[in-house]
Amino acid sequence: MTTQTLDGVTVNTQANVYFDGKCVSHGIALADGTKKSVGVILPSTLTFNTGAPEIMECVAGSCEYKLDGTDNWVKSTPGEKFSIPGNSKFDIRVTESYHYICHFA
Amino acid sequence: MTTQTLDGVTVNTQANVYFDGKCVSHGIALADGTKKSVGVILPSTLTFNTGAPEIMECVAGSCEYKLDGTDNWVKSTPGEKFSIPGNSKFDIRVTESYHYICHFA
Repeated sequence: MTTQTLDGVTVNTQANVYFDGKCVSHGIALADGTKKSVGVILPSTLTFNTGAPEIMECVAGSCEYKLDGTDNWVKSTPGEKFSIPGNSKFDIRVTESYHYICHFA
Repeated sequence: MTTQTLDGVTVNTQANVYFDGKCVSHGIALADGTKKSVGVILPSTLTFNTGAPEIMECVAGSCEYKLDGTDNWVKSTPGEKFSIPGNSKFDIRVTESYHYICHFA
């Protein structure tokens, strides 16, 4: 069961562009002020650093991710989530564009 | 005066990816059902076709555009809009990422 829409949100009209456009997201805020983002990662292998803990929810496409301190690439497909601790990092590799919601945990 | 946020909207979590990612947008719907999109065009020169008439509103960065049937490249900067007729096309060239709201007129 994927989350196809988020309702009653405020969306930032300016995108966040990372890694020369391999990752593009738009920040949103829920009515209660909770911040999230919706984005897409195009085919690539990238390393992201976290500040706050994050939960990545796949809404279309897929990725493989590897958390810091592990050697396992794990696949994530639509409807699946994975969690990244704060002040950490993770590798992600994408062969078909990975569409996601990033929740700040 | 740029439009920095759109409030009370429904956002589609899956992005629209065009031209191998040179253009990425997310569809949104206002409370009254009006559909728009928020997106970014990375440095490139592209040609877009329209179905419905569109109004492109720059929220950050800039572009130059050339409407079908004209020879003029016209610059569009934050706060500025330009209109494209339905069933037409336009060329756009971007040297610094162009962030926009697309209104369907």
